[in-house]
Amino acid sequence: MNNIGIVKRNIVRADKQAVEKLSRFGVATIHEAMGRVGLMQHYMRPIYPNAQACGTAVTVLLQPGDNWMLHVAAEMLQPGDVVVAACTVENTDGFFGDLLATSFRARGALGLIIDGGVRDVKDLTEMKFPVFSRAISARGTVKASLGSVNIPVVCAGVAVNPGDVVVADMDGVVIVPAGVAQQAADAAEAREANEADKRAKLAKGELGLDMYKMREPLAKAGLKYID
Amino acid sequence: MNNIGIVKRNIVRADKQAVEKLSRFGVATIHEAMGRVGLMQHYMRPIYPNAQACGTAVTVLLQPGDNWMLHVAAEMLQPGDVVVAACTVENTDGFFGDLLATSFRARGALGLIIDGGVRDVKDLTEMKFPVFSRAISARGTVKASLGSVNIPVVCAGVAVNPGDVVVADMDGVVIVPAGVAQQAADAAEAREANEADKRAKLAKGELGLDMYKMREPLAKAGLKYID
Amino acid sequence: MNNIGIVKRNIVRADKQAVEKLSRFGVATIHEAMGRVGLMQHYMRPIYPNAQACGTAVTVLLQPGDNWMLHVAAEMLQPGDVVVAACTVENTDGFFGDLLATSFRARGALGLIIDGGVRDVKDLTEMKFPVFSRAISARGTVKASLGSVNIPVVCAGVAVNPGDVVVADMDGVVIVPAGVAQQAADAAEAREANEADKRAKLAKGELGLDMYKMREPLAKAGLKYID
Amino acid sequence: MNNIGIVKRNIVRADKQAVEKLSRFGVATIHEAMGRVGLMQHYMRPIYPNAQACGTAVTVLLQPGDNWMLHVAAEMLQPGDVVVAACTVENTDGFFGDLLATSFRARGALGLIIDGGVRDVKDLTEMKFPVFSRAISARGTVKASLGSVNIPVVCAGVAVNPGDVVVADMDGVVIVPAGVAQQAADAAEAREANEADKRAKLAKGELGLDMYKMREPLAKAGLKYID
Amino acid sequence: MNNIGIVKRNIVRADKQAVEKLSRFGVATIHEAMGRVGLMQHYMRPIYPNAQACGTAVTVLLQPGDNWMLHVAAEMLQPGDVVVAACTVENTDGFFGDLLATSFRARGALGLIIDGGVRDVKDLTEMKFPVFSRAISARGTVKASLGSVNIPVVCAGVAVNPGDVVVADMDGVVIVPAGVAQQAADAAEAREANEADKRAKLAKGELGLDMYKMREPLAKAGLKYID
Amino acid sequence: MNNIGIVKRNIVRADKQAVEKLSRFGVATIHEAMGRVGLMQHYMRPIYPNAQACGTAVTVLLQPGDNWMLHVAAEMLQPGDVVVAACTVENTDGFFGDLLATSFRARGALGLIIDGGVRDVKDLTEMKFPVFSRAISARGTVKASLGSVNIPVVCAGVAVNPGDVVVADMDGVVIVPAGVAQQAADAAEAREANEADKRAKLAKGELGLDMYKMREPLAKAGLKYID
Repeated sequence: MNNIGIVKRNIVRADKQAVEKLSRFGVATIHEAMGRVGLMQHYMRPIYPNAQACGTAVTVLLQPGDNWMLHVAAEMLQPGDVVVAACTVENTDGFFGDLLATSFRARGALGLIIDGGVRDVKDLTEMKFPVFSRAISARGTVKASLGSVNIPVVCAGVAVNPGDVVVADMDGVVIVPAGVAQQAADAAEAREANEADKRAKLAKGELGLDMYKMREPLAKAGLKYID
Repeated sequence: MNNIGIVKRNIVRADKQAVEKLSRFGVATIHEAMGRVGLMQHYMRPIYPNAQACGTAVTVLLQPGDNWMLHVAAEMLQPGDVVVAACTVENTDGFFGDLLATSFRARGALGLIIDGGVRDVKDLTEMKFPVFSRAISARGTVKASLGSVNIPVVCAGVAVNPGDVVVADMDGVVIVPAGVAQQAADAAEAREANEADKRAKLAKGELGLDMYKMREPLAKAGLKYID
Repeated sequence: MNNIGIVKRNIVRADKQAVEKLSRFGVATIHEAMGRVGLMQHYMRPIYPNAQACGTAVTVLLQPGDNWMLHVAAEMLQPGDVVVAACTVENTDGFFGDLLATSFRARGALGLIIDGGVRDVKDLTEMKFPVFSRAISARGTVKASLGSVNIPVVCAGVAVNPGDVVVADMDGVVIVPAGVAQQAADAAEAREANEADKRAKLAKGELGLDMYKMREPLAKAGLKYID
Repeated sequence: MNNIGIVKRNIVRADKQAVEKLSRFGVATIHEAMGRVGLMQHYMRPIYPNAQACGTAVTVLLQPGDNWMLHVAAEMLQPGDVVVAACTVENTDGFFGDLLATSFRARGALGLIIDGGVRDVKDLTEMKFPVFSRAISARGTVKASLGSVNIPVVCAGVAVNPGDVVVADMDGVVIVPAGVAQQAADAAEAREANEADKRAKLAKGELGLDMYKMREPLAKAGLKYID
Repeated sequence: MNNIGIVKRNIVRADKQAVEKLSRFGVATIHEAMGRVGLMQHYMRPIYPNAQACGTAVTVLLQPGDNWMLHVAAEMLQPGDVVVAACTVENTDGFFGDLLATSFRARGALGLIIDGGVRDVKDLTEMKFPVFSRAISARGTVKASLGSVNIPVVCAGVAVNPGDVVVADMDGVVIVPAGVAQQAADAAEAREANEADKRAKLAKGELGLDMYKMREPLAKAGLKYID
Repeated sequence: MNNIGIVKRNIVRADKQAVEKLSRFGVATIHEAMGRVGLMQHYMRPIYPNAQACGTAVTVLLQPGDNWMLHVAAEMLQPGDVVVAACTVENTDGFFGDLLATSFRARGALGLIIDGGVRDVKDLTEMKFPVFSRAISARGTVKASLGSVNIPVVCAGVAVNPGDVVVADMDGVVIVPAGVAQQAADAAEAREANEADKRAKLAKGELGLDMYKMREPLAKAGLKYID
């Protein structure tokens, strides 16, 4: 009746080329390109400046205060994966530290997204292992209750399926469903195509009002200028 | 690439008898019976004491500060439905008031679960129209941006599909996937079967320690009694 | 350079008839009628069900943990006033209890809006003295630091001038500047004029989609119905 | 090295007469009488209107998501006790419901203070079993990890020793150390002695400014009246 | 009746010399010098270490999830301005990114204070464009609803008029009304005058107790030393 | 009846060698080694990256918005102390800045843990004076109300006695009671003993599942692998 206690071995990961292409764009661009969906809640923050990660999701469902399933997940990792860990209830315990990071990296993982807490932040920063989390907390965890690996989860407000693309940077975390990864990458590319041109115009003092032809719709909406 | 701007007309609602059976149990019981999954976050609170609702989900995805899609959802309602409204971003505006409640009720809806704000709380209380929400707010909304109706949504941390069973009472809101509604109802029934008996024993002063045979596992776990 | 330590004796209160007219409408209606401005943040909640108040603002600026200025404000009260108390910093101490309520009521005050805490909630409920506050807290306060009375304040996110109209009910608290009180009351009246008619239509099952002629704009915005 | 896994059988409860006397006063009064110490954080709220409790503390330290120790505590209860449950980490799970309430009441307990969540709120309300908690949540708990009973705990920001007096009402929860219970009760009595007199004067319109002789100190502090 | 949909072209900016002088002092000093008023709530944080800004306010009132008015504000900017953006309701969307920053800088703006979210944080950091915000969020915004430019706003709890001085640094954001800018600058200067001297004394081990002559007032207040 | 207005001159500080030994380990390690107790709530954060402190606690109880007792505490400091400041109520004012830091350092203090706000963050960072706080806020404080120094306090959820060992780093703040300092240091050492070995194995790709022999208990708990 529920999905607790299950590990799915074989998952379909998003197309590698699409993932690679998505890795070139920022979270804000991808999120816009997808029609403004898939963004995790803004409390998910990187543990060090300029952390970033892009890869395919291996999903984990944790029980509060229990990091057993992260060890189980380690075996499921393939190079290019990013672990996405949700918890069955709001929890800020420190599920993850430098030993697990060492293990994840050895298995090819590129980072961790966790709706919970993380510890050993100084070591993780030195390792440059990117983690995006709800909290930083030294509180350790036990290994006593089952969760699951590679089932669909809800992490920080977003539904994530194993194999989806995860992109994370200083602006937050966005999930791109595996089935639309290429489409999203193309849309992100199109979106950025003329950004350089726009930036140059704005830098010269041209107004967005003129560049985006906003004056007429603003007037139509009733905007009034007074002195 | 995304599901914005879509209304699905035909959805498969959970079996009526299973829904009816689930309506006899509390949220806490059902949640336990399902293996402790499916519970919305605890900030979802009823707007009046003893509010409760049980029905099949018509899902809505709202844009912040915009209640257009609730009007669209009204047409999709069938008797026995409960509207489950998520929002693309955290928002506490007052999306819903007594006029919409009148409309929803006329179409057969039994309540509203909304990860946002609600207004006209006094009127809704007099109408006894149960609403479970993130906030109470008089702030009105516009009707300008598309969301969707009857797509899968994430509401207050839980993935909800149209047709799933929604059960809400003073303890919170739980979602039972349509496919396991009967199984969950049976499990809830089994769980409650000997509650009366247990309650009678406890009321006489028998200890849970003895009734549940906890003394041995507690000792094994290392519990020490001192004077 | 600042306004600390000042009590303004003479303030211009909003027109009595406008206040009376505003008292007939709910906060949600008035807020909408004014163009969706003037609403305090939604954390301001009544201390008992169905509390409501409408009157002219006597403003108070409090120092954290100090309720001296509420005593000073008592002398400035006239029948029909509602005290609006802001604090120089976020604070949840219990600034106000049943003794001050007795004093305020004796001077003609109709209620209190306070961006802080309140105590003696059971007594205040029995007295039916309406209070809308950020918190309930037994923590007492001292009488040691000056604030001000009847200066412009910012309370729960809204600028309030002495004499403005305060309307508070289960949906929240809205401030109507004294200068537009009549206009706001008229707009609220107009807004409610055909609500009964609308409610009747909706109760018969007519859809907002048709009543508000939304189908065409929804289609134009790109809404798609699928089966 | 730590106090996990310990149950203390014999505790020294505060003097019965002092407890009885304290039960006549409100939390706000007692907290003031003690010099404004001992108040739990204001997020601790009653689960139903006018809930109140006064008794001697049996303390519990819970692990998150685990209510095993509440069963252990039941055996330690004596008539007149109030259970005070802290948790080793912030947690809002529903540790306590109607079955445990039945058991606690059968053992003589008068209520529960819990820095966590509680479920079966409707039943507890009908039973009139007073609970003051951080949250209401249907989320069930397991029985797997040891905590302790009758050790010193920190609950909602306050240090509580077993045997201390707990007083809780609509205004919050205050802890009176057993050793000063009589002194606190006397001070509370003194504080209330002339409240009726003050209330009568204020009700007649006398100002706190005059009654408490505040005009001179206000002037000395620099308060300026302007027109 | 309300100020929505208005752009004020001509505003009176605070005296340039006063602004320049204020730019030499920290937020904490200015706030103290003004009598501890004008400080925004502490959730307003810089997006990168050591960000700071001092200039004259061009105010913006935004609708949630809509950054149209920031484009309108760009045209109103003069060298030395700092944009102060409030929102009609609590909102954390990413209203502002590197393109708008490029435009603002080209028009002479020195920074942005926004009671909302901001994106492209990595780029803004590289540009050294100082932003103080409520949140960081990749969530993009639309351009559909009118707000206003250069009207009085309430931003993070403080009333701001166009032309006021904004000072922001690692300690927070303070608003100095244009009319008292010179006075505040002088008071800040006076306050800092003998700080170097005090620091030197404290560094040598002299106690604040002696330097500020606190021993007598402490004793008078009843402080007791025990062994 | 309460401990307000008291300064205890002579306190028993934890053994120097134990403190020195504890200083070699991280907060997460010590907290685990103690059996997962003594950790302050995770909202206590360092004001600059890689801040850390380890020393013996001089405790302070502050009144909200009042830093008088920090000056009193300065005189009680001995080389190797860390000040632990609690507040009688939740408060985020800026109690502490660079002048007090200069004084504390001159007296030998190694850092500050404060359940409140702190200002002059840029200066403190340049001084490398480690502070762990609830908030950063420019809001200044007065010197008007008594608190206490070197009494037992509750700081960020943890009971702290004067003389206890305080260890703080990027992961949080942990309190080690003076009486178990040596024992905790030894336990932390034992815990770290084979970490290097484990790290090496994990870095080579060995799984925690095998290294910690988790496969059997996981299977026993019912974990199922599917394809």
